[in-house]
Amino acid sequence: MSEEQNIVIIGCGAGGGTAAQFARKTDRKSTITILEKDKYPQYSKGALPYAISGDISEFKDLIEFSEEWFKKERIDLFLDTTVKKIDTKRQVVIAKRDDTTIEKPYDRLIISTGALPVIPPIQNIYHNGTLIKGIHVLRTLQDAQGIDSIVSKIKNATIVGGGLIGIEMADSLHKKGLKVNVVESLPNILANTLDEDMCNLLSEEIQKNVSLFVNHFATKVESNNNSISGIILKDNKTGEEKRIKTDLLVIAAGTKPDVDLAKSIGCKTGETGSIIVNDRCETNVKNVYAVGDCTEYTDFVTNKPVSIGLGSIVVKQGIAAGINAAGGEYRLPKGVLQTRTSKFFGLEIAAVGPTSNHLQDIPIVSGKFRGYSLPEYFPDRKSITIKLIVNKNTGNILAAQAVGSNAALRINTFACAILNGMNINELKKLETAYAPQVAPTLDAITLVCDIVSMKLSRRG
Amino acid sequence: MSEEQNIVIIGCGAGGGTAAQFARKTDRKSTITILEKDKYPQYSKGALPYAISGDISEFKDLIEFSEEWFKKERIDLFLDTTVKKIDTKRQVVIAKRDDTTIEKPYDRLIISTGALPVIPPIQNIYHNGTLIKGIHVLRTLQDAQGIDSIVSKIKNATIVGGGLIGIEMADSLHKKGLKVNVVESLPNILANTLDEDMCNLLSEEIQKNVSLFVNHFATKVESNNNSISGIILKDNKTGEEKRIKTDLLVIAAGTKPDVDLAKSIGCKTGETGSIIVNDRCETNVKNVYAVGDCTEYTDFVTNKPVSIGLGSIVVKQGIAAGINAAGGEYRLPKGVLQTRTSKFFGLEIAAVGPTSNHLQDIPIVSGKFRGYSLPEYFPDRKSITIKLIVNKNTGNILAAQAVGSNAALRINTFACAILNGMNINELKKLETAYAPQVAPTLDAITLVCDIVSMKLSRRG
Repeated sequence: MSEEQNIVIIGCGAGGGTAAQFARKTDRKSTITILEKDKYPQYSKGALPYAISGDISEFKDLIEFSEEWFKKERIDLFLDTTVKKIDTKRQVVIAKRDDTTIEKPYDRLIISTGALPVIPPIQNIYHNGTLIKGIHVLRTLQDAQGIDSIVSKIKNATIVGGGLIGIEMADSLHKKGLKVNVVESLPNILANTLDEDMCNLLSEEIQKNVSLFVNHFATKVESNNNSISGIILKDNKTGEEKRIKTDLLVIAAGTKPDVDLAKSIGCKTGETGSIIVNDRCETNVKNVYAVGDCTEYTDFVTNKPVSIGLGSIVVKQGIAAGINAAGGEYRLPKGVLQTRTSKFFGLEIAAVGPTSNHLQDIPIVSGKFRGYSLPEYFPDRKSITIKLIVNKNTGNILAAQAVGSNAALRINTFACAILNGMNINELKKLETAYAPQVAPTLDAITLVCDIVSMKLSRRG
Repeated sequence: MSEEQNIVIIGCGAGGGTAAQFARKTDRKSTITILEKDKYPQYSKGALPYAISGDISEFKDLIEFSEEWFKKERIDLFLDTTVKKIDTKRQVVIAKRDDTTIEKPYDRLIISTGALPVIPPIQNIYHNGTLIKGIHVLRTLQDAQGIDSIVSKIKNATIVGGGLIGIEMADSLHKKGLKVNVVESLPNILANTLDEDMCNLLSEEIQKNVSLFVNHFATKVESNNNSISGIILKDNKTGEEKRIKTDLLVIAAGTKPDVDLAKSIGCKTGETGSIIVNDRCETNVKNVYAVGDCTEYTDFVTNKPVSIGLGSIVVKQGIAAGINAAGGEYRLPKGVLQTRTSKFFGLEIAAVGPTSNHLQDIPIVSGKFRGYSLPEYFPDRKSITIKLIVNKNTGNILAAQAVGSNAALRINTFACAILNGMNINELKKLETAYAPQVAPTLDAITLVCDIVSMKLSRRG
């Protein structure tokens, strides 16, 4: 590799920004360039609902690495810059900022183009090719600012999509005093995060605060002067329609990977539609790496490809691609655990490993346990429910889901157990920390193992 | 084994009570007898300071399994009953309650005699062979009630011993409005729990609330009408003496295993002075098991014997002894991790594995990282400092210590890592759960691994 190589990164989200940071750490001499179509450098996408809710006081606080930071690290950051073409023969990236064409030669290229919001087929949402007033997606900081600019003036909001972002957004808008409806076409919310029985633990509390319409499609927008005034929902099962008054429609119906550029140079995409990368974040195209929401990776438990959509994994890919592109060596673990968490309406949830729906090829046994943060005699203890899924034949731990007190930190221990291929009979004997004022003698982490272990031994 | 065997258990603490419970679960037919010298059945010893502080409203709330519960489980519980002799030839235990002699034949005997408080050599603490008024140990529920009965009438308290119980008791008495002094002969408090550098993180906050006298011995009690009025402390280094006014002296200077009965029948004790047991909790004497604070077990990391003093381990031993004595099969893991936690003056601490002092035979590298419970831009984040100790030659994780936000739950993940013989280069890539409102992108759990990993690679 030449002494002064050129590393070009497309996209300054968590993946691209982290890759630049670690490329610089690995090689102090290389020229590093980031081309970003957005007007802001690396910011927290996951925190957008909390800037709208007011939990975080200013949108600019979400920017994790400023333009000054990149400058100090001698990383050339081009904002408002859209890549038009990649010439792999000459190893050049051609981009546009306003009317200026920017050509950047690369020795190593890192694609971090992310994902785009999916817009479901709802009638009348567009006028002249753009979403009408009051209809918003939530993907970028500008999207969030757009929503923020109107919430204080309106009363009713509807979210299309009951996934994590939809529910977090519902919590945020509810905090702002809006009457909020959530529309989900599946029979339960958060279907990619938790099993249905775990979701059911949340529904009652959520419905104290917002209206949930599961098994419903949004079919048609009603508008007034190109501004939304209502939405028609259709019941999946009965076909019955109802009209909801709404001043704001937030579309949180999932994303699709932004892979057009990558495909244009021959990067292979996989089953999920995202770019296939190896454990060094290399694509099949020479000197081209890819990271983040535009990529897929192998699930640790099922060995099947999954789309990357978690900031924590994106950052790890960024570390890997940055180090490797700069001539270092960093390999990701053999698969992703998809350790995930959220908190809304005061409820903390977390999970690791596939949901039961994604484990249909593996014989499983599962069990649930409701425990508490403190011993029975200690005041103010909080509940924690854990569901554990193990391989029926081997007893190895495959997945865990939790709702309640410090769900995320408890799930981290299960992540460690899964990564080590741990058997339930080992995990159930794990010594967890105990003191009456901090934790119970035996934590729910091990007690749920007892439940499942008993089920396993009864079966066989 | 006969259809209706007799299981006799000496001691109804966490070890004996749990053993009875699991013996009953394993064998519905056996006759199970517990002989307990105390007047209360199984209660939480660790929670005694919090009944005094008022966090727990009544002492009776600490009783985890009531006399009725034992009755319902057909476990014969004899309280106020002191075992005088064990006849291993006839397999009979001879005990006394008041003037009544009780003889119980056993097929299996479980010794759970616990530990006794160590009384340091302080002048004038006894009158006619008993501690003078105002001097208390804290081991039993009655001890705690004794302290509780006077705290509202006094102003000054002194604790001898800056271990976990001493500091918890200091917190408790401070909450009751007392001026509290803690006297510790070592250079730092909590020496069995944390390394000195981690203790130093706590000292400032603790000293806002109570006076710490480290490197000091309590040498002599001053009294008035056989009631304590002051105590003389001596500086270890300078020899200087000072007098502290005190109305209450709590002795929390450690414990010694109560092994006289076990030794009388030939049970072997080990380096620590406690009874040696195997992974089924069997002693060397036929049909005799032992559990709890009177036993020693192997440390997982050092392979050296350690006294058992943690309720969570005692309960696991109780499970093992109960199941095995009743004809089942339950083996403990090959060593204890000593996962431990506490909370005082609003500070949560936790640790797993030996302190650096106990790792002098193993080449180690350690590092500390101060992280936060939430990302930088999220309000109300709390700090968490983790110290990690790894084997210098292999990079395997040996121990971790934490001070701050949810220290205990974070340490549980390190316990899982140590149990699996995990290397730092694996753990640093662990996917921890991330969402801005719950946890940072990369948790302190993995970031401390990066620090130590860098130290290791620089050395090696």
